[in-house]
Amino acid sequence: MTGNPYDIGLERTPANHQPLTPLGFLERAASVFPDHTAIVHGALRRNYRDFYARARQLASALAARGMRRGDTVSAMLANTPAMLECHYGVPMCGAVLHSINTRLDAAIIAFQLDHAMAKIVIVDREFAPLMNEALALAEVTPQVIQYDDPEYTGPGAIDGAEDYDALVASGDPEFAWLVPEDEWDAISINYTSGTTGDPKGVVSHHRGAYLLAQGNALTTSMAKHSVYLWTLPMFHCNGWCFPWTLSAIAGTHVCLRQVRSEPIWRALAEEGVTHLCGAPIVMSLIESAPAEEKRALDRRVQFFTAAAPPPESLLASMDAAGFDVTHLYGLTETYGPAVVNEWHGDWSDLSAGEQARLKARQGVRYLPLEQLDVLDPETMQPVPRDGETMGEVMFRGNVVMKGYFRNPEATQKALSGGWFHSGDLGVVHPDGYIQLKDRSKDVIISGGENISSIEVEEALYRHAAVAVAAVVAMPHEKWGETPCAFVELNAGQDIDETTLRMWCRDHLAPYKVPGRIVFDTIPRTSTGKIQKFALRERAATIAP
Amino acid sequence: MTGNPYDIGLERTPANHQPLTPLGFLERAASVFPDHTAIVHGALRRNYRDFYARARQLASALAARGMRRGDTVSAMLANTPAMLECHYGVPMCGAVLHSINTRLDAAIIAFQLDHAMAKIVIVDREFAPLMNEALALAEVTPQVIQYDDPEYTGPGAIDGAEDYDALVASGDPEFAWLVPEDEWDAISINYTSGTTGDPKGVVSHHRGAYLLAQGNALTTSMAKHSVYLWTLPMFHCNGWCFPWTLSAIAGTHVCLRQVRSEPIWRALAEEGVTHLCGAPIVMSLIESAPAEEKRALDRRVQFFTAAAPPPESLLASMDAAGFDVTHLYGLTETYGPAVVNEWHGDWSDLSAGEQARLKARQGVRYLPLEQLDVLDPETMQPVPRDGETMGEVMFRGNVVMKGYFRNPEATQKALSGGWFHSGDLGVVHPDGYIQLKDRSKDVIISGGENISSIEVEEALYRHAAVAVAAVVAMPHEKWGETPCAFVELNAGQDIDETTLRMWCRDHLAPYKVPGRIVFDTIPRTSTGKIQKFALRERAATIAP
Ligand SMILES: Nc1ncnc2c1ncn2[C@@H]1O[C@H](COP(=O)(O)OP(=O)(O)OP(=O)(O)O)[C@@H](O)[C@H]1O
Ligand SMILES: Nc1ncnc2c1ncn2[C@@H]1O[C@H](COP(=O)(O)OP(=O)(O)OP(=O)(O)O)[C@@H](O)[C@H]1O
Ligand SMILES: [Mg+2]
Ligand SMILES: [Mg+2]
Repeated sequence: MTGNPYDIGLERTPANHQPLTPLGFLERAASVFPDHTAIVHGALRRNYRDFYARARQLASALAARGMRRGDTVSAMLANTPAMLECHYGVPMCGAVLHSINTRLDAAIIAFQLDHAMAKIVIVDREFAPLMNEALALAEVTPQVIQYDDPEYTGPGAIDGAEDYDALVASGDPEFAWLVPEDEWDAISINYTSGTTGDPKGVVSHHRGAYLLAQGNALTTSMAKHSVYLWTLPMFHCNGWCFPWTLSAIAGTHVCLRQVRSEPIWRALAEEGVTHLCGAPIVMSLIESAPAEEKRALDRRVQFFTAAAPPPESLLASMDAAGFDVTHLYGLTETYGPAVVNEWHGDWSDLSAGEQARLKARQGVRYLPLEQLDVLDPETMQPVPRDGETMGEVMFRGNVVMKGYFRNPEATQKALSGGWFHSGDLGVVHPDGYIQLKDRSKDVIISGGENISSIEVEEALYRHAAVAVAAVVAMPHEKWGETPCAFVELNAGQDIDETTLRMWCRDHLAPYKVPGRIVFDTIPRTSTGKIQKFALRERAATIAP
Repeated sequence: MTGNPYDIGLERTPANHQPLTPLGFLERAASVFPDHTAIVHGALRRNYRDFYARARQLASALAARGMRRGDTVSAMLANTPAMLECHYGVPMCGAVLHSINTRLDAAIIAFQLDHAMAKIVIVDREFAPLMNEALALAEVTPQVIQYDDPEYTGPGAIDGAEDYDALVASGDPEFAWLVPEDEWDAISINYTSGTTGDPKGVVSHHRGAYLLAQGNALTTSMAKHSVYLWTLPMFHCNGWCFPWTLSAIAGTHVCLRQVRSEPIWRALAEEGVTHLCGAPIVMSLIESAPAEEKRALDRRVQFFTAAAPPPESLLASMDAAGFDVTHLYGLTETYGPAVVNEWHGDWSDLSAGEQARLKARQGVRYLPLEQLDVLDPETMQPVPRDGETMGEVMFRGNVVMKGYFRNPEATQKALSGGWFHSGDLGVVHPDGYIQLKDRSKDVIISGGENISSIEVEEALYRHAAVAVAAVVAMPHEKWGETPCAFVELNAGQDIDETTLRMWCRDHLAPYKVPGRIVFDTIPRTSTGKIQKFALRERAATIAP
């Protein structure tokens, strides 16, 4: 091949090539809008000048305590200013932020600390007893820093832990923070929920965090100075990168220790909140708040929801309460949301039912995701765009994780064939929007036919007595597998197994009707997701 | 050094690393919003499905005519659908887009064609005679494609040229377009205006175009489905990357062959335009339109201006006419605007004069520009933030060009010391906003003191008789240099040299008063910039 003339004498130099990193967003916000309010937390209002100064102090103090590139700093914090500072201060000293889900148990926390090789742990006083337990179980012996949030007045403390604010105060507000050597350097590690069994340490890099942080603002038209309420846990995929998005648009974070309706409505009314995120359960909480908590709002508020499709009834009541709901979908492995239900203006003229049907679809790729498709995992060929043929949802692009920490085998498997295999099963509608149908591990294969556990659950949900339904595979002598349903009933309702199976027979193909229906409490993960693997184990024991 | 555990088994793969390119924005817009109007041009309304299909057809047809990675395709087109198609179709076959300023003369066009090694030329019928002349002068013999825009009814044609629409029709709408092999690959080449003498071929890459295209939307809060009016020539730094920005937000391009007030006001009123760009002269045109052309608008329109600071009187009248004006600054070498006068909400409460003073400052870095500063070019140290000490404006980051084509020496000089040297002189105000004071080549050094030509011009502009003023250095026996002013008077005004020098004496330090004031027409480049190098030559001949 002859040389491309556009490659000669036109090499990368520090003048025209710098690693992408979201950390620079904070530096810019602080230099352009130093007096703009960056963080609201109870009585505290902190501007960008101070937010940036404190992040640098934290970085400097962590460096002084020996943190170097590639060291892990674990944070077990509520949605507080300290957690925001960690999203900048930890990577600013070159370390990798490991956020811990505050609802986990001590054994899993200990597992994570060991697996992530935590060198320092920053813990909110409220979670100190739990962390104490975890540290007793763990092999690593990280230095412990304790954050005493003035908004928390309950019990808890770790003896001899260094105080977070004293640590920050010891740092240099002019610290020359470390730009990553390469945009591929790790910025954070987040363990998956463990819904499918084994939590894996998802490693994110600066490039992806930069792109998804911008992608949030671009995909959802977030304007400069938007005000964001923290109803989504920041420990969940780094709060879907919103801690970085807000600096990019010089917005305001409104912190929230606990997701309760009263402080949410207060913040909506008094802080001028424009955006918030959460699972559908957060919408239920907002919408079912007592009348005296609800407030009239002088603007439409944008609610981004993920984790599950938003149900029709919720969409209608949220709309009436003044919220525009956007449905997002993603995984820890994709930095949070990487798929968006892009709304078409003319869809708003359709019936509420039709709108809900369209909005239940997960949608299309985020701008910074290069490719999204549903492929047959055997052939790696795209499924037909018929809204019916199931395949595995796959992602390709710059907002796919670096890989699983210390797990090259799982990494290779997840990224094989040039695509990230999500483990979610779905279809593609004729207009190119994808819709999830199940997780691959949850599909039931009966006599060679795939049964979507979600389809069976939907049939059960249509019965008024059913509050929660979860369907898993149960071994079957003849068919290999058959569906087994677990059901929680609505308060005051009663129904027997036979009647409910009859109901299913009226609403499903015969081979999809559950072989057993069990009425019992359904086990969930700390993020509220149903633990189907636990149900599968139970189903195996009751198989006929 | 011990190994960083976050670098082990976590390599780049096609699943998690793809070259950044703005071409994907069009693919996404076409797949998500196929029926949304992408382009309006006279009677034509083209949706995203067709825009994307035509771009792929163009790419396929160019590939069929032999275009390979690194080949140059030159385009001399007005702001038409064809020019938008070229911004996608040319790089989609791996070629590099060379946009030609339609106001240049044949000799310079020939120089550019030769220097860029043009293989194919796409030319609007209106500019065909000029292109014919240029081709006669040039050494290269590119294939010629002629675009016959139905909105153009005047004379002009090249005999035997292939028809653009026939070329597109011959291409494959399903063409598997070429993703760049590396995001560092060239996407376009643009020659500088030649204001300072020698036009240089600025090479841009996919990474920078991706980032600046997003940066336009992010920095200026452009929402989804914005409607953009093409008052800025697309041949100027690829229309500041807006041809790509609009696809990122699935917006609508409103094309415009000629910048005249009547079609501008018509588009503003009838097409729902939300954004437009241009030099201050475009604002004058809009604001001074005859009353019968002006229309009432049902929304505020965003006007982004660059090339020169917006004058106070224009800001006031634009505000009254319904426009929010944002001041941008950049160079061909920075993909268009890379600096923005970020407006603070509370500045809007200040007096009109104070607001104009604040808005005249060029401002702060764009989000995708990593660093912006004013340095002493000798020591490479930042100047004090005092609003007075001059230095050279320098840029560092991912939206700085790849370099100058076939000019490694100029490239190395421009990018030396890890910064891009803009050749613009400026100061940094205490709040970190930069303000341009002059071009380094235009500064006058008198008795060892630097005199800003802009400061002397400002004093002249304050006199009611002065329409245009340009000040350059004139050789002086004693002082080395002294200012020489060239002035165009307002219609019906008359003033003599002595009176105007007395005026300057009242408004300037004595050594800054022009040694000569010449009343004459001032030479300009094709983009309307004053050619100071030509004036300097003249000043040398009239030196006392
Ligand atoms: N909008 C949505 N609709 C339906 N399901 C969703 C949606 N958003 C996310 N999900 C589900 O959540 C999953 C991502 O969750 P997360 O990464 O937090 O952990 P997890 O997958 O539940 O845990 P693990 O990977 O350990 O099993 C997706 O794979 C998908 O199954
Ligand atoms: N907002 C602005 N205020 C003042 N000057 C500006 C502004 N925006 C751009 N400029 C001037 O325009 C220059 C960039 O123009 P461009 O890259 O189109 O070509 P040029 O610099 O005029 O040509 P050449 O490099 O060949 O001399 C900047 O260097 C600056 O001098
Ligand atoms: Mg998962
Ligand atoms: Mg220049």
